Amino acid sequence: MIPFNIPPYIGKEEEYIKEAIINNHKLCGDGPFTKRCNSWIENNFKTPKALLTTSCTHALEMAAILIDIQPGDEVIVPSYTFVSTVNAFVLRGAKIVFVDVRPDTMNIDENLIEEAITDKTKAIIPVHYAGVACEMDKIMDIASKHNLFVIEDAAQGVMSTYKGKSLGTIGDFGCYSFHETKNYTMGEGGAISIQNKKFIERAEIIREKGTNRSKFLRGQIDKYTWVDMGSSYLPSELNAAYLYAQLEEADEINTNRLNTWELYYNGLKELEDRGYIELPYIPDNCEHNAHMFYLKCSDMEERTDLIEYLKENDILAVFHYISLHSSVAGMKYGQFSGEDIYTTKESERLIRLPLYYRMKEKDTLYVVEKIKNYYR
Amino acid sequence: MIPFNIPPYIGKEEEYIKEAIINNHKLCGDGPFTKRCNSWIENNFKTPKALLTTSCTHALEMAAILIDIQPGDEVIVPSYTFVSTVNAFVLRGAKIVFVDVRPDTMNIDENLIEEAITDKTKAIIPVHYAGVACEMDKIMDIASKHNLFVIEDAAQGVMSTYKGKSLGTIGDFGCYSFHETKNYTMGEGGAISIQNKKFIERAEIIREKGTNRSKFLRGQIDKYTWVDMGSSYLPSELNAAYLYAQLEEADEINTNRLNTWELYYNGLKELEDRGYIELPYIPDNCEHNAHMFYLKCSDMEERTDLIEYLKENDILAVFHYISLHSSVAGMKYGQFSGEDIYTTKESERLIRLPLYYRMKEKDTLYVVEKIKNYYR
Ligand SMILES: Cc1ncc(COP(=O)(O)O)c(/C=N/[C@@H]2[C@H](O)[C@@H](O)[C@@H](OP(=O)(O)OP(=O)(O)OC[C@H]3O[C@@H](n4cc(C)c(=O)[nH]c4=O)C[C@@H]3O)O[C@@H]2C)c1O
Ligand SMILES: Cc1ncc(COP(=O)(O)O)c(/C=N/[C@@H]2[C@H](O)[C@@H](O)[C@@H](OP(=O)(O)OP(=O)(O)OC[C@H]3O[C@@H](n4cc(C)c(=O)[nH]c4=O)C[C@@H]3O)O[C@@H]2C)c1O
Repeated sequence: MIPFNIPPYIGKEEEYIKEAIINNHKLCGDGPFTKRCNSWIENNFKTPKALLTTSCTHALEMAAILIDIQPGDEVIVPSYTFVSTVNAFVLRGAKIVFVDVRPDTMNIDENLIEEAITDKTKAIIPVHYAGVACEMDKIMDIASKHNLFVIEDAAQGVMSTYKGKSLGTIGDFGCYSFHETKNYTMGEGGAISIQNKKFIERAEIIREKGTNRSKFLRGQIDKYTWVDMGSSYLPSELNAAYLYAQLEEADEINTNRLNTWELYYNGLKELEDRGYIELPYIPDNCEHNAHMFYLKCSDMEERTDLIEYLKENDILAVFHYISLHSSVAGMKYGQFSGEDIYTTKESERLIRLPLYYRMKEKDTLYVVEKIKNYYR
Repeated sequence: MIPFNIPPYIGKEEEYIKEAIINNHKLCGDGPFTKRCNSWIENNFKTPKALLTTSCTHALEMAAILIDIQPGDEVIVPSYTFVSTVNAFVLRGAKIVFVDVRPDTMNIDENLIEEAITDKTKAIIPVHYAGVACEMDKIMDIASKHNLFVIEDAAQGVMSTYKGKSLGTIGDFGCYSFHETKNYTMGEGGAISIQNKKFIERAEIIREKGTNRSKFLRGQIDKYTWVDMGSSYLPSELNAAYLYAQLEEADEINTNRLNTWELYYNGLKELEDRGYIELPYIPDNCEHNAHMFYLKCSDMEERTDLIEYLKENDILAVFHYISLHSSVAGMKYGQFSGEDIYTTKESERLIRLPLYYRMKEKDTLYVVEKIKNYYR
C-alpha cells in the first residue's frame, strides 16, 4: 500500500532527543532546542519573533487572545479550512464570518472580503491552502483600510513565499503547524510569528500561563507572578529536538517534495489538457512548498469512485475539508457572507494524492499511471 | 550543586521513543503509546476514562469547557496554587473565588468552602498540594448538597490516595501533570480523568478540535466534521512513549521518592520538636507520593536567609506559590472569600528542598545536616 503520508524523518532526530535527555537535563519547554528552533524561524523567515507552541491550533488561540477578541466580535475566514482556524476564535466568543474561496487556489477570495466587513469585524484569517499563498497585498490593503488584524494560518505554508516574503510573516501574526501531517514535524506542535512588535511581551506572558516567568528566567525580576490570562503553550524539548533536526535539513526536504510534486504535475498534465481533471494552480508571485498534491474530479461521485479505484490498487488517496459553514458547529457559530459558489462544490471534488519526503519516484509514477488508467 | 529537581529517568524512554518513530510511523497524538498510558491510568487509578493531554493546564481547560463555564460563573479555589488552576476558568470568563488554606496541609480549608458559595457558583477546584489529599469526603458532600462540579487539580497527586481512592478519581474530573517538575514526566503533558460518564463523548470531541474524529477513527462514521467548540489537546507519541516507560516503573519511582522524603522527615524532626521549623503533615487517611518536601521557617526574612545559606552550601532550595489573590491578575479576575489568615503568611515561610527520583542518600543527609547547622 502506498500510504497517503509518512512523517518526515531525517535520521538525526534521535541523536538530538538524546542530547535533550542526557546533556541538558531539561525536557520541559523553552530549553536550548526550542530556542534554536525559534531562532531558525526568525532568521530564515525574517520575523522579529517566533515562538514554538504545542500546536498550530494553539498558535491561533494565542493570536485570538492577543488581539483581545470579545464575545460578538467577528472574524473573516474561508469556510474551506481546518476547524482549528475557527475554533481558536469561537473559544473567545467570536462570530465566524465565512467567505467563499477562489476555485483556482482554494484560498479565500480576496475580492469578497470587503463586503463581509461590518463594524464588529476584528480580523481577517487568510489560510494558505496547500502552502500556496493567498493574495496578501490585497488582503493587507483591506486590513489597513479597515483597521483590522491579519492572522495568517500558515499551518501548511512553512517554507513557502509570496513575492519573496515567507508565509506567516506578512500579517500581524503567522501560525505554523509541525503536526506529523506537515512538511516538518515534531509530532504535535506549531509556532507563532509576531510581526507586530507591540504584542511580543504579552505573547510571552500568555504562552507562560499568564505569568511574567520569561522575565524571571532572564533575571529581570526576582519572582514571577500572575499578571494576565494565559495558557500553557510551550512544547517539550523532546519535540523541539525532533523538529530541529528537520529544520536543519529544510531545503533538502523542500526540494525533495517539490520534485515529487513536479512529477505528479507533469504526469497528470495530459489528463488536464484533455479535460478530465483539474490540477493545482500556482500564481506567478508564489513559491510553494509542495505541501500537498491535489486534483479535482468532475464531482463527488467520481471522486468517491476514484478513491475506491486507487485503494483497490494499493494507493491511499483522501478527500479533505468538509465546508465548515454547513457543519453543526458552523451553523451555530458562523454565517456565510454572500453566496457559497465554490466552497462546497470544489471541496467535494478535490482529492489529495500521497506525497511525503522521500516518496519513491516509482511510487509517484505508479500513482500517475493508475489515475491515467482510470480515465482511459 | 545539589539541584532542586532532576526529571525522572528510567532508561527505557529512548527505546520506546525509537519504537514510536520507527515501528509505528506515528508521532501525532492518540497512537499506541497514548492508548497504553490512558489504559494504565484507568486500570491503576480505577477511573472509567483517562485521556492524555498536552498539559495539566489543558486538562483543566478541558474540564472548564466541559462543565460549560459561562461569563460570570464562579469557581472556588485555594489562592495558594499554581496559576493554571485559575487560568483555565478565567479563559472561559469565570470569576475566581479564593478560599483560605489549612496551615497544616496547605490545602483548601474545607470548612470555609460553604460560605463562599453563591447562586453563581459552578464548581469547586480542590488542589492536592504536594500530593497530599484535600478533605474530599467533606468537599464531595458540599458539592452534592449545592449541586456543584468538583474538578480535582491532582497535578501533584499522581499515585497518591485518599481513603484508598486514587487522587483525581474522586471528583467529576481529575487533572494530572506530567511536567518535568512532577513525579512522572513526558516533558510537558498531563491527563484528564473523567468519572462523570456523561462527559466522556464530549471530552473526546473537545480534545479533537471540536470534531467527531474519534468516532471516525473507530469507523463509526464515514467522515468527520465540526460539531462543537474545541482545541487540540493530544500530545505527540514522542511524549507518550517517554511517559509510558516511567508509568511502568511507577512503584519503583514512588518508593524511591518516599524513602528520600522519610529521610528528610526523620532527619529534621528534631528541629521541629525544638520549635525551629514546621514539617509537612500527612493526615491519617492519606497516602502521599512524596511529590515534595517542604518545611516552614518563622517568616519570609528567615526563609530568604536560609535559601541564601543553602545556596552558599551548594544546595538549591526554592520558595513556591505567591498568593494568587494579591497578584495583578488575581485582583482583576478574583475575590477572596472571608479572611486571608493563612494563605499569604504560610506561603511566605514555606521552602521546598531538593527531591527527585534517585536522589543520593548522602545528598539528602547533607541537606539535613546543613539545615541543622543553620539553626544551631
Ligand atoms: C497545582 C498545579 N496545577 C497545575 C499545574 C500545571 O501543570 P502543567 O505544567 O502540566 O500544565 C501545576 C504545575 N506547576 C509546576 C510547578 O508546580 C510550579 O512550581 C512551576 O514550576 P517552575 O517550572 O516555575 O519551577 P519551580 O522549580 O517550581 O520554580 C522555579 C523558581 O520560580 C520561582 N517561582 C515559582 C512559582 C511557582 C511562582 O509563582 N513564582 C516564582 O517566582 C520559585 C523558584 O525559584 O510550574 C510548573 C509547571 C501545578 O503545580
Ligand atoms: C489550515 C490548518 N490550520 C490549522 C491546523 C492545525 O494544526 P495543528 O494540528 O498543528 O494544531 C491545520 C492542521 N490540519 C491537519 C490536516 O491538514 C488535516 O487534514 C487533519 O488531518 P488528519 O489527521 O485528520 O488526516 P488527513 O490525512 O488529513 O485525513 C484523514 C482522513 O480524514 C478525513 N477527513 C479529513 C478532514 C480534514 C475532515 O474534516 N473530515 C474528514 O473526514 C479525510 C481522510 O480520509 O488534521 C491535521 C491536524 C491546518 O491544516
